[in-house]
Amino acid sequence: MIIQLEKEISAKTKEEIVRKVSDLKYKITDVKTQKGDYLVGIGKQEFDIRDVGHMPGISDIHIVSDDYKLVSRKWKVNPTTIDLGDGVCIEEGGMAIMAGPCSIEGEEQIDKTINHLKENDVKIMRGGVYKPRSSPYSFRGMGIEGLKLWYKAARSAGIKIITEVMQVSQIEEMLPYVDIFQVGARNTQNFNLLDELGLVDKPVLIKRGISGTINELLSSAEYVFSAGNENLMLCERGIRTYEKASRNTMDINAITILKEKSHLPVIADPSHGIGIRDHVEPVALACIMAGADGVIYETHEKPEEAYSDGQQTLNFRESKKLIDRMRKVFDLRESM
Amino acid sequence: MIIQLEKEISAKTKEEIVRKVSDLKYKITDVKTQKGDYLVGIGKQEFDIRDVGHMPGISDIHIVSDDYKLVSRKWKVNPTTIDLGDGVCIEEGGMAIMAGPCSIEGEEQIDKTINHLKENDVKIMRGGVYKPRSSPYSFRGMGIEGLKLWYKAARSAGIKIITEVMQVSQIEEMLPYVDIFQVGARNTQNFNLLDELGLVDKPVLIKRGISGTINELLSSAEYVFSAGNENLMLCERGIRTYEKASRNTMDINAITILKEKSHLPVIADPSHGIGIRDHVEPVALACIMAGADGVIYETHEKPEEAYSDGQQTLNFRESKKLIDRMRKVFDLRESM
Amino acid sequence: MIIQLEKEISAKTKEEIVRKVSDLKYKITDVKTQKGDYLVGIGKQEFDIRDVGHMPGISDIHIVSDDYKLVSRKWKVNPTTIDLGDGVCIEEGGMAIMAGPCSIEGEEQIDKTINHLKENDVKIMRGGVYKPRSSPYSFRGMGIEGLKLWYKAARSAGIKIITEVMQVSQIEEMLPYVDIFQVGARNTQNFNLLDELGLVDKPVLIKRGISGTINELLSSAEYVFSAGNENLMLCERGIRTYEKASRNTMDINAITILKEKSHLPVIADPSHGIGIRDHVEPVALACIMAGADGVIYETHEKPEEAYSDGQQTLNFRESKKLIDRMRKVFDLRESM
Amino acid sequence: MIIQLEKEISAKTKEEIVRKVSDLKYKITDVKTQKGDYLVGIGKQEFDIRDVGHMPGISDIHIVSDDYKLVSRKWKVNPTTIDLGDGVCIEEGGMAIMAGPCSIEGEEQIDKTINHLKENDVKIMRGGVYKPRSSPYSFRGMGIEGLKLWYKAARSAGIKIITEVMQVSQIEEMLPYVDIFQVGARNTQNFNLLDELGLVDKPVLIKRGISGTINELLSSAEYVFSAGNENLMLCERGIRTYEKASRNTMDINAITILKEKSHLPVIADPSHGIGIRDHVEPVALACIMAGADGVIYETHEKPEEAYSDGQQTLNFRESKKLIDRMRKVFDLRESM
Repeated sequence: MIIQLEKEISAKTKEEIVRKVSDLKYKITDVKTQKGDYLVGIGKQEFDIRDVGHMPGISDIHIVSDDYKLVSRKWKVNPTTIDLGDGVCIEEGGMAIMAGPCSIEGEEQIDKTINHLKENDVKIMRGGVYKPRSSPYSFRGMGIEGLKLWYKAARSAGIKIITEVMQVSQIEEMLPYVDIFQVGARNTQNFNLLDELGLVDKPVLIKRGISGTINELLSSAEYVFSAGNENLMLCERGIRTYEKASRNTMDINAITILKEKSHLPVIADPSHGIGIRDHVEPVALACIMAGADGVIYETHEKPEEAYSDGQQTLNFRESKKLIDRMRKVFDLRESM
Repeated sequence: MIIQLEKEISAKTKEEIVRKVSDLKYKITDVKTQKGDYLVGIGKQEFDIRDVGHMPGISDIHIVSDDYKLVSRKWKVNPTTIDLGDGVCIEEGGMAIMAGPCSIEGEEQIDKTINHLKENDVKIMRGGVYKPRSSPYSFRGMGIEGLKLWYKAARSAGIKIITEVMQVSQIEEMLPYVDIFQVGARNTQNFNLLDELGLVDKPVLIKRGISGTINELLSSAEYVFSAGNENLMLCERGIRTYEKASRNTMDINAITILKEKSHLPVIADPSHGIGIRDHVEPVALACIMAGADGVIYETHEKPEEAYSDGQQTLNFRESKKLIDRMRKVFDLRESM
Repeated sequence: MIIQLEKEISAKTKEEIVRKVSDLKYKITDVKTQKGDYLVGIGKQEFDIRDVGHMPGISDIHIVSDDYKLVSRKWKVNPTTIDLGDGVCIEEGGMAIMAGPCSIEGEEQIDKTINHLKENDVKIMRGGVYKPRSSPYSFRGMGIEGLKLWYKAARSAGIKIITEVMQVSQIEEMLPYVDIFQVGARNTQNFNLLDELGLVDKPVLIKRGISGTINELLSSAEYVFSAGNENLMLCERGIRTYEKASRNTMDINAITILKEKSHLPVIADPSHGIGIRDHVEPVALACIMAGADGVIYETHEKPEEAYSDGQQTLNFRESKKLIDRMRKVFDLRESM
Repeated sequence: MIIQLEKEISAKTKEEIVRKVSDLKYKITDVKTQKGDYLVGIGKQEFDIRDVGHMPGISDIHIVSDDYKLVSRKWKVNPTTIDLGDGVCIEEGGMAIMAGPCSIEGEEQIDKTINHLKENDVKIMRGGVYKPRSSPYSFRGMGIEGLKLWYKAARSAGIKIITEVMQVSQIEEMLPYVDIFQVGARNTQNFNLLDELGLVDKPVLIKRGISGTINELLSSAEYVFSAGNENLMLCERGIRTYEKASRNTMDINAITILKEKSHLPVIADPSHGIGIRDHVEPVALACIMAGADGVIYETHEKPEEAYSDGQQTLNFRESKKLIDRMRKVFDLRESM
């Protein structure tokens, strides 16, 4: 059960609601986010919703049978808008483009990427400064200094930054320089990281786990929301299957299913979804047609020289073509 | 190696070519299809392609390193067109629509479906008369009598028929009534069935196996082609994964990869690919955007009363909407 | 519901039972096997089992809620024994060993294998004469002539034969020479083949599908049983997963789960289960410890020269060691 | 390349080795563990190993072609022994038993479990005080206070403690009370956690990821080793597949493959591997037969009342039976 509380609720009124719900043997989680106050009740006993709903201090009450509650579309009909400021929003009915290299490599690369994005009216740049790598001997990213360089260039160009945070201790140092925190596919169920990101007033994009289920992704988002941050996005990036002709198997089904189940924006990552440069475009266009609210992909001036993921990275010419086509596909989708 | 022979080649000239190739320690398969004569050579020894290529009787020669040869795009740049007659073609640059019920149930159902297709200018009707079912106690289809009923109605309406053949002994009795033989996902590696379909002068659509790889699908097509039938289509219908929020995981990657690897038309089956009625449309549109040359899906006047697969079957109103949108998406794709 | 009929039931008595069950809106399948007469009723309506059970002509009645019925252990507490004659049985409480090459290659190979088996007191020889191969250009087996050669040598040595049947049309020609028909992993859901094997009075071993579920394997066995043949064995041979360090992922869980769910003997195939020669032994021993009633594995005098599957085939020295150890492990298991 | 340095190497001698290797364009990682000093060189250039190997200060040098180096058996023929003190060792040729509840619940439960272990001469107790849970509303463990209670009781009983650490910030507070840190399946690729555990002088057991590959598990161990801690164990706990008849698919192949590839002890977790109480025993016995150096499983006085994982937890009677049988199976394995 989700209880939305009135904005100016008194401690006493709230306490009465809590007592009432506790009497029903529901375990209560008190959730306070940027946007509202909620009580989430977990329990099994059936009850008459009107007995609770009529109480003072309650603006709305909903029964949600899913394991996840606050991220479910069952109680929140209006989809969530992520407002990054300066008119940059990620939301249903829009198509956010986030592009940039796998790894941030230095000033020159940053500047060239920013120029490319500006020329194509793209507002959000992706890039990794902390890189999760299977082998301890691989390049692990430029770290916080890379992020600061990037921030300086991006701010003056009016470009927003999305980048991966790998552990709790990085949050504080990254916070001033980041517009969206990305939780990577290996950290989707790093519950401590999710808890901490719930305390931060910056949007979070959560990637689906390497072989995570749709329900697990939603439950991971529930972690962040229930810890206090409802500025969330979900990202489909392909799953691990037996098929080795592509790096991952892009789960196009997940895009339309996530849109049905949750009020959060759904972003597609075709670069990791297929992992083959020549095929990123058709997969990206397909994802938009399936209902994605945005696309995140890898581009680099010279993919063959990129520090990582070059095999799935578009050059700027390919990137420009993709952007143009994504916009056409999006326009058609919205016009139908 | 694939050697395309000249049309009027003499037995003696061909014998010389065979001897030459055998001397290279290549195992030769002699392939004669509706469209041409080929020698497929399998071996490892390197040789100068000009030594063979200059011989009389050879119109072209190609080295193909894939396990599959004749279905590869590496030797056949021009994509394959499947001509069903009466102006109905399935080919690259077109978008074939094949719609109809999971199971053929009787005359009334057939007539209603045909009317629906005609109203929407759809030329190919799908339907099962032999149904592969996990349990021996489930409905297994109307059989050959159902096919005859269907044929009668379809022919007079100018509608083409695609239906599944499950075993070798059915081929002969079905032959007069079928426009396209469908090989189901449980029979993708029924090699005897594939061999026999190579002897038939009717097009064949091969579904990817339940958990078949892309390479296995191409090798299955190679079976039919090398047995003499090059009127082939490949069909992506979703694969089995750990994710249970959908019936299968539609492998959108496979569509664009198959288009790159093979000259055969690629058809998408969104009904089985996601298995949830409300989500068939976005998946179908995504598949077209990813490059599919056609779509096969399930529709029924009253899905809730269908003998099988009702949960993923569109009613005629939904089907009409899908057809209209698929055409718009296809038009955009071709215009880009 | 499963109704076991009395042996000497009259047509009239049976008709009355059928009518009674039909009145309950249960669809009835009439099953007559080597061992008994059954009526299998499929329906949803609840009823008092005693109302049916007391009728004349019924020796027993059981409610089985699984999709599969006749192969379930819920009604048949006594496990099934497969009697191959000459004192060779496959059954719970025993450990059948079936060994031999992937492909039958010729008389010399047959003789050497038979000698190896006799020296180690192994009674059943495996070998393929019809080989399912992904590529049409691979060796497809010696066919019926190979089987005849093998039969001649095996019979005079007192060795039983298990070999794969790939299609309906092969059954009749193979019948005189085969002791156990094997249904391969690509044919587990070849329902026509299963139906026909139901009409044959020879035991059948059914391999689990390439990525078949445990329930699907049981339903495939139900096909054969309900068509009239209850001399069945189930075989776990590894499933397809994302892990590529082994050929398949041997599902050790399946062995103990199948033993719980079904009264049929369960055989393990470690050769395909892991696909790496050096690791076949530990996997085989593990399967016995998990409860397998038998093991089928590949051995060849010179694995490196075998026509197929050499990488997972044991030489005779390794095979002998495996046999000795399997017997020790089995003895321990039975003594605990 | 792995260079084992002599114990008393001078800074200058080491510097010369580093310079030599750097000249070969190998990237060097300097590794100092409890047991030795190593240089790990990553590069592609071929060179004559004797040119390096003869240098002063080098006790041994090895070329290892795997992605992982230090955990490979290719350079370290003698398997690793984990010495927990008081004569408790985990090593090849032994069979460590680690048993206890999924979650630590309180003093009474701790005491009863310890009594059960002592009665059966089991030296290591498992239990979770920090529980990773898919839903934020589930019980997340007793935390550090639970660990302290447990430590007090375990120390006085001579029982060692293995428990999961979920994040970097927990390491320091847990350190005094833990004998083995466990890295859970959701944290196998939490690289920051692995790095930090490399700095700790306590053994670490790393579980395979939910759908991690064998190579990824080895690379995760490489993280910890290369950061300075070589007291490591690998744990197979089942992988996620399409099969839903069991909680996970226990990958019995992984046990024998890991034993071949690495010198680290391999532990099996049959409780998570199958997830069904009645089937834990056969899977556990199979894992020992496949070569596991130890088993970790869940037991609780009253599984039906356990806070978590009750469906896969043995009661003490079942646990006792399992322990007896595991020892018999182990004895047989070692005697063969």
